[in-house]
Formats: sequence, C-alpha cells, structure tokens
Amino acid sequence: MSTAADTASAGADKPVSTSSAANADHAMMANAIRALAMDAVENAKSGHPGMPMGMADVATVLFTRFMKFCPRDPNWADRDRFVLSAGHGSMLIYSLLHLLGYEDMTIDQIRNFRQMGSLTPGHPEVDHTPGVEMTTGPLGQGISTSVGMALAERMLNARFGDDLVNHFTYVIASDGDLMEGISHEAISLAGHLKLSRMIVLFDDNGITIDGALDLSESGDQLARFEAAGWDTTRIDGHDPDAIAAAIEHAQTTDKPSLIACKTRIGFGAPTKEGTSGSHGAPLGAEEIEGTRKALGWSAAPFEIPQNVLDAWRVAGLRASKARTAWAERLDAAPEAQRREFERTMAGSLPNELHAAVNKLKRAFSDDKPSVATRKASENVLNGLADVVPELVGGSADLTGSNNTRAKSQKSVTADDFSGSYIHYGIREHGMAAAMNGMALHKGLIPYGGTFLVFSDYCRPSVRLSALMERRAIYVFSHDSIGLGEDGPTHQPVEHMAALRAIPNLNVFRPADAVETAEAWELALKALDRPSVIALTRQNLPTVRTKHTDENLSARGGYELSPADGDAKATLFATGSEVEIALAAQKQLQAEGVSTRVVSMPCLDLFLEQPAAYREDIIRPNTVRVAVEAGIEQGWGRLIGDSGGFVGMTGFGASAPYKQLYEHFGITPDAVAQAVRERL
Amino acid sequence: MSTAADTASAGADKPVSTSSAANADHAMMANAIRALAMDAVENAKSGHPGMPMGMADVATVLFTRFMKFCPRDPNWADRDRFVLSAGHGSMLIYSLLHLLGYEDMTIDQIRNFRQMGSLTPGHPEVDHTPGVEMTTGPLGQGISTSVGMALAERMLNARFGDDLVNHFTYVIASDGDLMEGISHEAISLAGHLKLSRMIVLFDDNGITIDGALDLSESGDQLARFEAAGWDTTRIDGHDPDAIAAAIEHAQTTDKPSLIACKTRIGFGAPTKEGTSGSHGAPLGAEEIEGTRKALGWSAAPFEIPQNVLDAWRVAGLRASKARTAWAERLDAAPEAQRREFERTMAGSLPNELHAAVNKLKRAFSDDKPSVATRKASENVLNGLADVVPELVGGSADLTGSNNTRAKSQKSVTADDFSGSYIHYGIREHGMAAAMNGMALHKGLIPYGGTFLVFSDYCRPSVRLSALMERRAIYVFSHDSIGLGEDGPTHQPVEHMAALRAIPNLNVFRPADAVETAEAWELALKALDRPSVIALTRQNLPTVRTKHTDENLSARGGYELSPADGDAKATLFATGSEVEIALAAQKQLQAEGVSTRVVSMPCLDLFLEQPAAYREDIIRPNTVRVAVEAGIEQGWGRLIGDSGGFVGMTGFGASAPYKQLYEHFGITPDAVAQAVRERL
Repeated sequence: MSTAADTASAGADKPVSTSSAANADHAMMANAIRALAMDAVENAKSGHPGMPMGMADVATVLFTRFMKFCPRDPNWADRDRFVLSAGHGSMLIYSLLHLLGYEDMTIDQIRNFRQMGSLTPGHPEVDHTPGVEMTTGPLGQGISTSVGMALAERMLNARFGDDLVNHFTYVIASDGDLMEGISHEAISLAGHLKLSRMIVLFDDNGITIDGALDLSESGDQLARFEAAGWDTTRIDGHDPDAIAAAIEHAQTTDKPSLIACKTRIGFGAPTKEGTSGSHGAPLGAEEIEGTRKALGWSAAPFEIPQNVLDAWRVAGLRASKARTAWAERLDAAPEAQRREFERTMAGSLPNELHAAVNKLKRAFSDDKPSVATRKASENVLNGLADVVPELVGGSADLTGSNNTRAKSQKSVTADDFSGSYIHYGIREHGMAAAMNGMALHKGLIPYGGTFLVFSDYCRPSVRLSALMERRAIYVFSHDSIGLGEDGPTHQPVEHMAALRAIPNLNVFRPADAVETAEAWELALKALDRPSVIALTRQNLPTVRTKHTDENLSARGGYELSPADGDAKATLFATGSEVEIALAAQKQLQAEGVSTRVVSMPCLDLFLEQPAAYREDIIRPNTVRVAVEAGIEQGWGRLIGDSGGFVGMTGFGASAPYKQLYEHFGITPDAVAQAVRERL
Repeated sequence: MSTAADTASAGADKPVSTSSAANADHAMMANAIRALAMDAVENAKSGHPGMPMGMADVATVLFTRFMKFCPRDPNWADRDRFVLSAGHGSMLIYSLLHLLGYEDMTIDQIRNFRQMGSLTPGHPEVDHTPGVEMTTGPLGQGISTSVGMALAERMLNARFGDDLVNHFTYVIASDGDLMEGISHEAISLAGHLKLSRMIVLFDDNGITIDGALDLSESGDQLARFEAAGWDTTRIDGHDPDAIAAAIEHAQTTDKPSLIACKTRIGFGAPTKEGTSGSHGAPLGAEEIEGTRKALGWSAAPFEIPQNVLDAWRVAGLRASKARTAWAERLDAAPEAQRREFERTMAGSLPNELHAAVNKLKRAFSDDKPSVATRKASENVLNGLADVVPELVGGSADLTGSNNTRAKSQKSVTADDFSGSYIHYGIREHGMAAAMNGMALHKGLIPYGGTFLVFSDYCRPSVRLSALMERRAIYVFSHDSIGLGEDGPTHQPVEHMAALRAIPNLNVFRPADAVETAEAWELALKALDRPSVIALTRQNLPTVRTKHTDENLSARGGYELSPADGDAKATLFATGSEVEIALAAQKQLQAEGVSTRVVSMPCLDLFLEQPAAYREDIIRPNTVRVAVEAGIEQGWGRLIGDSGGFVGMTGFGASAPYKQLYEHFGITPDAVAQAVRERL
C-alpha cells in the first residue's frame, strides 16, 4: 500500500485523484479516523481515543454520503449543521476536517492536538476551528443546543423559503449526553415542535467512565425518545449500509430522529475495545501496535495512504456542490429578500434601532411612569419587535411574569414556524441551550425569560453563551427580595454576583424604564457577548427624567445625581436600590453632607472602562457606600477597604416586599447611616 | 351543619369525637383543604390556590388511609416521608398539617399565610414548619431529593433491619416538576436502583402557567417513566377509591411507582377550574363564593365544621399508632444497634474522628508527599471510611478522577443496599438532590464528586443544601486551569467565586494533603451547613510540614509562613497557588522585602471570624496581593483599594498545565512583581 505523508501545506488545494479514491473502501476510510485519533492522543499524552474509534464508521457514512458542507467556505448559510455533543471525542471531528480537506486543519494541527495555540484543543471550540459548529464538552449541551439550530432552520425556512434555508442538523451524542437532565428538556421540546430535520446518532457503546453502563443506567433510551415524540431506530454502528439506511429513513420522517448505533468503544484495540480503558487515556504503544494489526492499517502515525486521502477529498468536493447551487439560488432571489437574509445572517442590526430606542427613552422620560422594570421591558419589546424582526422571544413558562411577549409576536408551533415567540415550557436549561443554538445558527436574535433565581437552572448554558461569544439575551425577572411572598426559594441573593462572575457576560440591572431601554439596546448591539437583563417585579419610579440620546448605561455606571457642591460621599446602586440611594442622598444633603449617586446598571461594562473614567466615577476620596439587594461580593473594588455595603448577608424570607426591605435593613436610613459612620 | 371556629390554642390537644368524625365523608374532608387554600390565598392577596384544590382528594386519601406519621412527634425516625415537590401548592401541606392536628399549625398560622415570621411561608421550608420534610418551590427538586430519601431508607434498612427502618417516600409532583431536566436524572436513578418504596403522585392537570400544557408539551409521561423502569398507573384523581387502589398497588410493586392523577386544577371554582387562572393568584371574592356553593361548603373562611375537623384528627391519631409500635421495637433492639442507630440519626460524629484526622495529618506532615489534593482526599477517605461508617460516597461517573471511593466502600446496587458507594451516573444534578435527600432523611452523611466546573450543573441543589442547612459534602476536583489539556469548557475560572457567593456554604480549597484532611474534618463537623472541597488534578508539595493537632483551617485563613522581620507585604493564596505564593515570598525576601504568606483554605469561614482576627491576618498596613487561579471577584475586601490580584480575567485554554500557568501569568514572578509595583 502506498502512503503519502501529508504536510502543513497540504489541504483542499492538493490535487485529488478520483480514480485513486475509488480504491479506498469504507473500512479504510473509517480506519483513517481511528489511526489519527489514537496517534494524536498518544502524541498528546492525553485525550479520548475510544469514541472516535467507535464512531468512525458512522461518521464516515454521514460525511461521505449525506452531509452538505463546504471545506472552502465552512460557514455558508445553508450547510447542514453537525454537532459533536460528545465533545471529548474531539479527534473525531479534527480527523474529519483534515481528511475532508478543510484547509487550516493540516496534519501538523493534528500532531499538535491539545497543545497551546493549536486548532485542535482538548474539546472542540467554535470560531477557533473552522468547521466546528459549537463548543462542546460539557455533556448534554450539544444535543440541546442542536434543538435551537434545528428550530432556527425551520423558522428561517418559514421566513425565507426552501431555496435559501433547507438543511439538516446532525448530532453525535453519547450515553453521558443522554443521562444529563438537560437532554430531557431538549428532546421533549424537539418532539413537541416536531423538529423532523434533527437527527441524533447515539453512540450506544454501553460504556461510561466508571465502567459498564449498567453500573448506573437501566433505562430504555429508545422507548424514552419515543415517549418524547421521536422516531427511533437501532442499528449496528459498524455496518455502513445499515447506517446509511437509517439516516435515509430519518430524513423522511416527520419527527426528530434518534438512531441508536451499537458500537464498540475503541474499535480495533486488541485488549481495550469495548472497555472504559479506551475512553479517556492514550492506548499505549503496544495497544496501538495491536490495533494497527487488527485494522490492517500499516501507515505510520499521521500518514494517510494516498488513495484513502483522495477518497475523503472527493467526498469533500461532493459535499460542496450543494453550496454552489444554493449560491445561485441566493443570487436569483428578490433583492430585498436577499438583503434581509444576508443582514440577519450576518447579525447586523437594522439602522432604525437607535431611533426606536430613543423614541422609547424620550417617552419614558416624559411620562415618568412608576412601573416595574419587567413591565418596562415589555414596553421596550413592543417598541422593538417590529423594528428587529429577527428578535425571537420566549419564556420558560412564565410569559406573564417575565413580560417577555410583545403584542405582535405570534407563537411558534409544530405546524407553523412563522411566529417569533416560543413557549419553552418549564425547561430553563433547554431554553438557554436552544437560544445558544439559534445564536450559533445565525439569522435570529434569541431572548428568553425566567426568574433570576432560576438562572442557576440554566447556568451551564449561560456559561457557554459567554465562552462561545454568542448574543443570547437572558431576561431574568423577579430580581431580588422585592418579589416578596414567594420567599427564599424564589429570592435571588447571590445571583447578581454569580452571574457577574462569568467572563464575557454583561449583567444589566436597570433602575427604571429608561435604563431598561438602554440595557436592551446594549444587549442587542453586543454582537459577540451574551447579556442578562435583571428586572424587578415591583414598581419603580422613573429616575432618568431628562432625555438624552446618549446611552448612559453604555459605560456601565454613571453619575445619576450629582452632589450639591463638593461631594463628601458617593452612593453606588443598581436597579430597585437606586431609588433608595436617591432618598438617602436627600437625607444626607439635608444634613449638609454633599452626596452623589452613581447608578451602576452594568458593573461588568464599568470595570472595562479606562482607569480615568472609573476613578472619576468611583471618587476614592469620598466616603463610599454601595446598596444592592444582594450580597456584597463583587463590590469590594468600588467601596475599598473602608466603604460600606447595604444589602443581604443570607437568604431572604416570605413576606410582602416592603416589609422585607425593612426587615433586612435595605433602606434610605441604613444607607445614610452607613455614610455617617464613615464621615 | 354545625361549624366550630378553631382557635390559635386548638391543636391535637382538643378532644376528638370519633362518632362526630364518622359523619364527615371524604368529599367534605377534601373540601376543607380546598376552603383553607382558597381563603388563605385570598387573605394573603397572593399564592397558588389551584393545585391544593385540585389535589385535595389525592392528599386526603393518602394522609387518612396510608401515611404513617405522628403530629406529636413530627420527626420520628421511621415515619413515611411526604414531599410536596410542587411547593407552590404550599397551602396543601399547611392545610393538612392543621387538619391533622400538628400543634404549631394553628388556624392563625393559616390566616397569616405568606406573612413575615409565620409558619406558613410562600413555599414550604424544612425546620421552619414542623411536618415539612424539605424546602420546595424550585421545580424538580422535590421529586429528585425524594430519590435520596428513598435510597437512604433502603440503605438504612440494610444496616438496621425492618424493625427500625421500614417506610415509604411519597411525592406530589406537577407537570413542571416532570418537565425539569433534573427529573430525568432522578427517575432514571430511582428506576435503576429499583427504589420500590418511592411513590409519586403526579398532579396530571394539563395546565401550566402559560396556559394549556399542550402549548409546550406533547410527551407521554407514563411511557417515559416506564422507559426508566417505573411502574405506572393512570387514575381519576378525584375518585377516592381509585386513588386508594392505585396506592395499594404501588406499595406492592418491585419498582418505583408513578400514579398519574387526572385532576382539575382549582377544583370547584365555577369559572377558573381547569384553567391557568386558578394557578397562581387569588380567586377573587366572587369566584370564592361560587366555589363555596359548588362544593357545598357553607362554613365561613378559616372555619372547619367540627365533624370534618374531628374526622381529620382521627386520621392523625390513626397515623400515630405506627410510631408507638416502632418505639417499642427500638427499645427492644440490641443496645449497640440502638445506640448506633440513634447516633447516626442524630447526625453526631463518632468520638474517634478527631484522632483519625490527626493521625492522617501527622503522617502527611511527616511524609511530605507531592500529591494532587484529589489523591490526598482519597487517602483521607481511606482513613475515615471505617471510622465514620455513615459516610456514603459517590461520583457522577468520575470515580477514578474525583478519587471519591475509599478502598473499603462497596457499591450500592438494586439487589444489595448494604454498601456505601453510589454510582450516580452522569447525573450531577440528580446526585446533588439525592445527597440532599439522604441528609434530610438523616442517618447517612452523603458526599459526591464531579469536576468543579460542573458544579454549575447541580447548582440549584447546592443552593438548597445551603438554604435547608444540610450537611452535604461536594467533592469538586479539577479545580482550575491546572487540569490542563481538557481546555476552557472544563476549566473553572469563576466557580470559586460563584460558590462562595452562596450563603451558608463553606467552600474549601486546600493547599496540600494536611489542609485536605482539615477540610474533611470541618465539612463533617458542620452539622447544619454544606461544604464544597475543591481539589487539584495536579500534584502539589506539602506546605504544612510541621504537625499540629489544631485544625488551622477552622478559622478559614491563617499565617502559613511568617515574614522575616516586620512584614512589608502579605500574600494571600488558596490551593495550588499557595506554592506560588511561597516561591514569591522567597524571591521578595531575597530582595529584602519581608513578606508573609497567608493560606486561605476557606474564605467563607475567614470572613465570619471576629474583626480583630481578620485584621491580624489581613494586615491592612502591608502591601497586599492575592493569588488564585480564578477571577478576582470576592478578594476585594482582603486586598482593598490598592492591592494586587494575580489570577484569571477570562476563560482558560487547552494545553499542558504548566504552560497555562505561564501563559496566563500566574507565577511567582508575577506575584512578586505585583508586590514590587506597590512598595
């Protein structure tokens, strides 16, 4: 067998010989994945060879016979999406990308698996590696995010038609993905919405890290998926014809599909095949030698026989043809439709947005409503939904409480995907993952609501929004003890701090309707960053009573109310406590203590401002007191060694909210007293 | 119909007339719940009348014919456990407790529903209200925690026999409970372990907050539960005989049981029955009047007809009889068994614990191992497992990585509950909830492991451990970028801060084997507080080389290495960064900058120390720099306005860990430089 070392410069540009390709059979193509996976893990001295080796047959059939993609244009809009939910098997996708001719994925990248700066990190990372659709690794996220991708596909299809949007979403998922709770939320949502173009290939290998699956699992996955409205098939995951037949069938059903592929983890490894020993560690030199023998694979590490490589590259070229046809259809589409499609897929906002926001802000400043910020947020949505038609809302079954639905928004249903409001059900985690999927797919801007305290339920997905740098907008209402009688289980205390802790996430807590509008504008304009908008249940007065076109929240914090004369004290507050700070300011100034009030709608943005601006706002030479109906953590840098903090030190309680503020001492008196003690 | 106003003084002490009781039929007894629920919600001007009204029949049958409990001794060990997973329907359990004669639950408490300081908060709170087994409200937690209760029952039964431990765990769950992802983890674990004494009564009312269930759900719950290995039945939830027959059947199967009770939410309300309008708001005066008419309930608000009350109190007395018989069996049990049962049920630790911990500490200080703290933790467990037999371990399928299994621990299986190690599967959330269930049940001390980054997956349950003040011990390994190649999806950055943010939770990050042993001792001794022990993947040197019997970690932070002479600088560090701080100290002192190093294994405990101790450790007059391979948030109060922080500012990366520490600048040089810049 002739072999040819690939080099860093070889990629899709290398001439491909179709006659040579014809000599490579399915088994050798799949073995190329197995060899790259085991050799790369061995070279890195860490990683997961077992899954890529087990799923090599399935992946080979999927990518050579079905997937629609383009190695030269990995991000074209109507490609099929492929998500490796079992992200630890990253060598599967890196091998595929190399073999299929994705230019950047050279053999040197494969050699540098898991090394600093390589395109081949331990788990797949979107944007970092062309051809990777999402960052996976935390189990259950891939399959759940894919629901959002498949949903976005149907919604955009309803908007733009079959010519422009018409693709499948394929997922490879493991036992771990299916054991995670989020998978339940995801598959029941997908089943409910009949997302028939979502096809999950389940790596049914009967092994987990602790050992045989039956140590911890006795359930019937097929029956479970059927109960959730899915079509299911069980096949031999090493039989290429069975794999192909199952995918063909799945493409034609009117339900989402699960194909359980019975596989042997670490396929080909003489002693470790079918055991957890092949899951998460290098096989070792001896085992690798035995595997080469068993697979009939004589090429040296990181070498792919030319005919095998050619066969893969032919598959890459085949898969690209759909792109050419699609591009022609896009060119032929009506100008306005094409422009709107391209605008929304690029994530650009309509030019009218800023004016629409300012219209709202001016009206709020003029009318000075006393209104809960959740209600103000609804008013903002009513003003923006038609201006930004790609805005897609929803709530985890708290629509009337989160105030997430604009008047013009029609529900999305299994029969009609033309709407823009999604009833996610009581599935916070599934909602957040689906939002990530829509943001990753592009073409839609997802937002979704629940209570702030239940941000904990979707935190792993919120973290992924931030890590993947995707514009998902979380509308978290009932943002403090101000929700009152529902009590400590429903009262967020640590959640502002815990969310601010997540890197690359803007956490807004607006003080009134004007700041709420500003938060929405900033969230929409943050193209590569998710946002949280924390909103009150209780009414708040308008504190921004003088209109300005400038978005004052953009710098995170600003002086809302200057001191009478030289400031001796600075009060920092967010959201519902700005009102309290203003009342304390009055008290103090009546006593001759000139006091300024800083509204801090987004601490994250504020801490990113230049030092001079920060210092000007903080004023370290004044007595500093922060007030927020949450814990102190995170305020230390603003209030320093000797500043005061008025807030919560433990969990809340069940009572009418005004009594709670008194009970926990979050009052103008307490704020003023904290200043006095420090003068 | 004669009615009698109950008063604050009326409780189980009131004489009960059995002949009067015989006149009250099931419907009137159930209507008493409905009346109390709708009137209390009306009076509070907030709350959830619909669910108690819908499930009144089911609850009446369960409590009058099946439940084993004692109003005079609500916490006796072998009572049946009842968990209201749908905690928003709190008036159901408050009504039951009042009607059954729980002394503290007077009619005044019912009148004070949702008011400050009442025993009737918006959602049920354990310890706060006698008869409430757990704090519920966050959906899915109740059913999932109950799995831990049912598991604890079987494990204690295996240890102590039928005479002492032999009871059922009943749950009322809603659609919301079953839509939450955690329910999947819980029911598959319960099915796998064949927890046949767990019986879930599903309030199958077809309604969610957004409207009809079919807005967001099309799945088949019975088929789903069957796929998870459960026995299932569907009944008319308003037919008392059907309810009784279903519970009788459920008690005899060898699987956990789901009884889907078809009910009408807001049963009896003329216009709101069967609609989401009765779910979460007062019915209103007119609707209440109509309901009274429809139910044939003529008593005034908060008045229960005497015969109805008597019938309920008779049921309370009946249910108490089992307690008397059990107490006799306990008295007759062998002395040693009785003592051990009482000790573990009280949560007391064996006297030998402190000596065992010190034996370990001394050996570590003598041997000075270079060892990962996860491995040190395993060594501690090997030293403690036999000393503290009630310690029950487990891992979410990362046993070999979390090092959570002691040599002597046998696996718990469906056929043999005598072991003390649980294979939780890839179910972090289900694991944490089950741990809460075991801690609530009492008799066992649960600990469980996953990677620190996946603490996000179980955060809602960790919060409940803290809110409920239960001793659950979370072993979170792979606690920083020090895990290396697995990359940013697996590298915690914000997690130490986010966990420290949760009130009443001790978050430990030990620096070596000695501090690891100290953390375990403190976690075990924290009877009413959960703990997190964050552990490294990578080896660390022993920094506590001189043995002391005193647990130095008990104050949260302490001076590990004093300065040569008058300290000019203080370095704060935790875990793997203590080594870095010590190296920086050497550098600085070589340059003549006397520097002390403070190890801070538990910031939470440190911040609870008296101000004098804190000041002595912080030393505000020194240059202060903290180093931790996480974000700065939370260190502000220690380093003040001008101190330095060496750590992470964003997500990690995939590479060997030593390269990552260099790449992100978490090095002795960087720490020393941060001091120099501030001298």
